[in-house]
Amino acid sequence: MEYERPIATVDIVTLTLKDGALHVALYPRAKPPFEGAHGLPGGYVHVDEDANLDAAARRVLRDKALLKGVYLEQLGTFSGATRDPRGWSISAAYVALLPQERIKGALLAKADPVPRKLPFDHGAIVKAALARVRSKSVYSTLPTFLMPAEFTITELRDVYRIVLGIEKIDLAGFRKKILDLRAIEPVEGKMRTGVHRPAQLYRRVVKDIALFDRTI
Amino acid sequence: MEYERPIATVDIVTLTLKDGALHVALYPRAKPPFEGAHGLPGGYVHVDEDANLDAAARRVLRDKALLKGVYLEQLGTFSGATRDPRGWSISAAYVALLPQERIKGALLAKADPVPRKLPFDHGAIVKAALARVRSKSVYSTLPTFLMPAEFTITELRDVYRIVLGIEKIDLAGFRKKILDLRAIEPVEGKMRTGVHRPAQLYRRVVKDIALFDRTI
Repeated sequence: MEYERPIATVDIVTLTLKDGALHVALYPRAKPPFEGAHGLPGGYVHVDEDANLDAAARRVLRDKALLKGVYLEQLGTFSGATRDPRGWSISAAYVALLPQERIKGALLAKADPVPRKLPFDHGAIVKAALARVRSKSVYSTLPTFLMPAEFTITELRDVYRIVLGIEKIDLAGFRKKILDLRAIEPVEGKMRTGVHRPAQLYRRVVKDIALFDRTI
Repeated sequence: MEYERPIATVDIVTLTLKDGALHVALYPRAKPPFEGAHGLPGGYVHVDEDANLDAAARRVLRDKALLKGVYLEQLGTFSGATRDPRGWSISAAYVALLPQERIKGALLAKADPVPRKLPFDHGAIVKAALARVRSKSVYSTLPTFLMPAEFTITELRDVYRIVLGIEKIDLAGFRKKILDLRAIEPVEGKMRTGVHRPAQLYRRVVKDIALFDRTI
């Protein structure tokens, strides 16, 4: 026996840093429901075109946010009879992290507290994305995806501070921890110069996140 | 414009401890595809009956595994054009943890390495469930859900050792860490007696997991 199938969509929480705080990229909705409102980029799964939900999320990011090759991970699935006025629906939610300079045509809204009046349950999805990014940043290089192409260790440490909401992270300990992972490498001969003494620039060398050693 | 909707199902990885190793509960499939094969309990989402995917997972656990009131968390969503012979499908996968004594009518198969010849992509789902449980047990009370109603701190420490694959966890440090969380409490006046000196019995006091403090 077959059952009535739910609506299947994907939604993407694109997070970036702006003015020292995490922001979420919102796009105007071109069609009903909630036409004209700003929300997460999302759309139906296209079973004739998408190999799987990850592919659907990448297609939506490309078509609706003009973004390619970004760090993307599945956050969780939001579902139920009432979250979408069109009917019982499943939305696979994803988190993307990237530097602000790559985001075009979006409204950047502060992510915490979650923006009010988002369509559907997009508020709950943004909240879950923030919780995921914060908890995962404790033990991984996830925040490196918020950095521009080149950055100093001090700049990266400050981004960890912002993401984790920690006032102070010891620079020497942080430097050792992050370099031991070999997830970033110095950019030969390039230094950040300016008000401070010159500092070595680094770039990310891996496409996925690396994890710090942890033990109970 | 509406698109063809994917098949929507839930699958549950029920993990337990047996003979000092994590095992997964497999049930014979009553209908095609893979009729008669042992696999994860799963089924279609019933949009007329289930409030959301969590409710669908609880219904399937109740109907197919006769299990109620177990610890359940969403693992992730498995999807694609080829994972189910019936067509493009989305399966929301869940992990349940419970003591062996509660499992009835299942084949308990060692979870690592993942049992061969499981139907669909159930092998990949079991593998992802193991990875989730192991990584989350480093910083939470997740393994307490594998314990029977009453247990000693030493018994709980040994379950952490098994789940994490660590040979040695210092008992005094573990005791302090776990008791500080107030997620378990002594059972007034009850001791484990036997070959060792009598040891206080404990029980879980919270329905959800509690997290250890972590910092970068």
